[in-house]
Amino acid sequence: MKKLNGGVTAARGFKCAGVSCGIKSARNALDLGLIVSDAPAAAACTFTTNRVQAAPIIVSRQRLGRRRMRGLVVNAGNANACTGKRGLRDAERMAEAAGAELGVPPETLFVASTGIIGHRMPMDRVACGIRKAARALGASADHNTALAEAIMTTDLVRKSASVECRIGNRGVRIGGVAKGSGMIAPNMATMLAFLTTDCAIQAGLLRKALREVVRRTFNRVTVDGDCSTNDMAACLANGLAENRPVQTTGKAYDAFVDGLLAVCTELSRAIARDGEGATKLITVRVTGASSEKTAHLVARSIAESPLVKTAIFGGDPNWGRIICAAGNSGADVAPDRMTLKLNSVCLFRGGSPRSVAGDRLTKCMQPKEIAIELDLGQGRAETTMWTCDLTGDYIRINAEYHT
Amino acid sequence: MKKLNGGVTAARGFKCAGVSCGIKSARNALDLGLIVSDAPAAAACTFTTNRVQAAPIIVSRQRLGRRRMRGLVVNAGNANACTGKRGLRDAERMAEAAGAELGVPPETLFVASTGIIGHRMPMDRVACGIRKAARALGASADHNTALAEAIMTTDLVRKSASVECRIGNRGVRIGGVAKGSGMIAPNMATMLAFLTTDCAIQAGLLRKALREVVRRTFNRVTVDGDCSTNDMAACLANGLAENRPVQTTGKAYDAFVDGLLAVCTELSRAIARDGEGATKLITVRVTGASSEKTAHLVARSIAESPLVKTAIFGGDPNWGRIICAAGNSGADVAPDRMTLKLNSVCLFRGGSPRSVAGDRLTKCMQPKEIAIELDLGQGRAETTMWTCDLTGDYIRINAEYHT
Repeated sequence: MKKLNGGVTAARGFKCAGVSCGIKSARNALDLGLIVSDAPAAAACTFTTNRVQAAPIIVSRQRLGRRRMRGLVVNAGNANACTGKRGLRDAERMAEAAGAELGVPPETLFVASTGIIGHRMPMDRVACGIRKAARALGASADHNTALAEAIMTTDLVRKSASVECRIGNRGVRIGGVAKGSGMIAPNMATMLAFLTTDCAIQAGLLRKALREVVRRTFNRVTVDGDCSTNDMAACLANGLAENRPVQTTGKAYDAFVDGLLAVCTELSRAIARDGEGATKLITVRVTGASSEKTAHLVARSIAESPLVKTAIFGGDPNWGRIICAAGNSGADVAPDRMTLKLNSVCLFRGGSPRSVAGDRLTKCMQPKEIAIELDLGQGRAETTMWTCDLTGDYIRINAEYHT
Repeated sequence: MKKLNGGVTAARGFKCAGVSCGIKSARNALDLGLIVSDAPAAAACTFTTNRVQAAPIIVSRQRLGRRRMRGLVVNAGNANACTGKRGLRDAERMAEAAGAELGVPPETLFVASTGIIGHRMPMDRVACGIRKAARALGASADHNTALAEAIMTTDLVRKSASVECRIGNRGVRIGGVAKGSGMIAPNMATMLAFLTTDCAIQAGLLRKALREVVRRTFNRVTVDGDCSTNDMAACLANGLAENRPVQTTGKAYDAFVDGLLAVCTELSRAIARDGEGATKLITVRVTGASSEKTAHLVARSIAESPLVKTAIFGGDPNWGRIICAAGNSGADVAPDRMTLKLNSVCLFRGGSPRSVAGDRLTKCMQPKEIAIELDLGQGRAETTMWTCDLTGDYIRINAEYHT
């Protein structure tokens, strides 16, 4: 597998655009994007599990079926959530406008939105933006950069990744862009990921692959809690790599999953690193669990503990907070069996602290990436989650934002 | 029912003390307390559900049985948690030392600790403190104040409450002290509550009453998550009010529960108001739920949402974050049926926002107490939770603290 540039445009036959149309209040901020495939594509999507679902989520879910899709239209600055029937109609009108510009049926386009909740879409501006974006479409890395920027809200950096993997004797390309810096933030920071590939793969297998990869990547990122009203990950596969179509599980399918996993892992780590106000990327690895469910409960309890996250912000190897969060996870764990390492320094084993020289302790907390490794000593299941530290800037970003 | 002064000393036959013995690093900070009943008392306790349990929790749980108890010894500044067998022995030695000073069997004393995790108890200082406290015992309001202060960690205010209620023709008194300003913080802010009453009540009924009241009060306070390694609520009932003993459920039992509820509600609200870094007390009331479980899931999801809490800190009536947190609770809720009020101003009904004048909106966020009222429109169950806003000071308190 090799890394490529170009994000969603790395895959053959995909064009994209990101333009400004005045949905965001900042002048000239990019806020509307399009992705289009030259050929009809197999499609897979995963959606937020929040019971409050934004209009574009409802509309996109309806489009997901046997039909081959042509692309998607997305905006930032307005979530089109909690907007009632008018909001649903607005989401449909976005697809209609984009379909008319692109000359494809509106039912073959997904719709996604992120931004403020409870405000009506400024449809005049959106329509202008769609016209502008359709004219700006292209397949260069710059086009991908504009798209990655047009989906940002409180994100500080654009997030994009792409790889090429071998399937048979063909190089198959997979790319993606993502946004998100607070998982539960409907006004500020929905998690969106758009993935493209030129792999020829049967739609059912594409869905299986996306489900499996999302479970191991985007669903293991936590900044401040859980999914928003607008979360969505979509993948389009147009087959233009002309590989022998992937129609069963096996070697070719596994190669595709590995490629998709690489792209989504890179995007997930980028989301955690760019968490609102974050100064550090934290990887929580739980091993030796009696089941994957236990591993996940413990990892999530640690990754979401405000006290663990503030300690890491403060550069403090405060292992007591980590052991406490593990004990508090709801899982059946025993401190006597645990071994805890912080950036490879063992701090707690067999129910008691390990004595570590002060300067070694201080030093292990300095890197920009902190690895928390907790072995539960109970079995062989394991998991990894990504999160970030909790800082004064998180509070500022979220307290000073006004509706 | 009438309010009294005196906290744990309001009830007849209880003495207490709070002294300084050098466990906390701040000079002359009170850090060791005793509560003693003149007569053997029926006892009830609830303990943390964290799987990682501090030594005093393990020791106190062992003491809880048919035996009548005489009091408790408590310290702040060291949690005696994750300290292995030595820690267990130290907790037992605290009871032995206090028993020797007070002339009561050590098995009749509970032990509680709060403070830093993973450090050995400085037993020499603790022994000095116990001697000093035994000599300082008294039944005045000042003694109660010293006790309430000796159990504080990051708490900014002492928390104490007491009432008198009528049982038959006797005035029965119930008092208490509590500490806690971050629920999940083993190093910083365990939740402790010690309750005393002169009510004559059968031990089984006392336990039932405490269980019921804790469920409706302390278990509904959340600052930053869940219970620590050291959480404990204990109640001693010495019968010195000479009421006709409460031996069945019924009118007298209900009157006792009402009194205990009043004390614990006041203490719970004080804990939320004094949450680390808090500027506002937030009451989350969920009504119209299909079950109490649903009401609780929704209330907790709102009360623990960092985005809801930062919005309230910022004085922002950001109802979208509240609706999103409700949708994200795991409960089966529908936005179309919800009605949301913030300090009595209706902001969202039937799936759509309500238009409210800007100045009315701004004004409703100004009080020190914010009431979030969400009617789910699905049934008749309801619940109330208390929490506080999330501020820059919370980060400072928890990031700047070093182990």
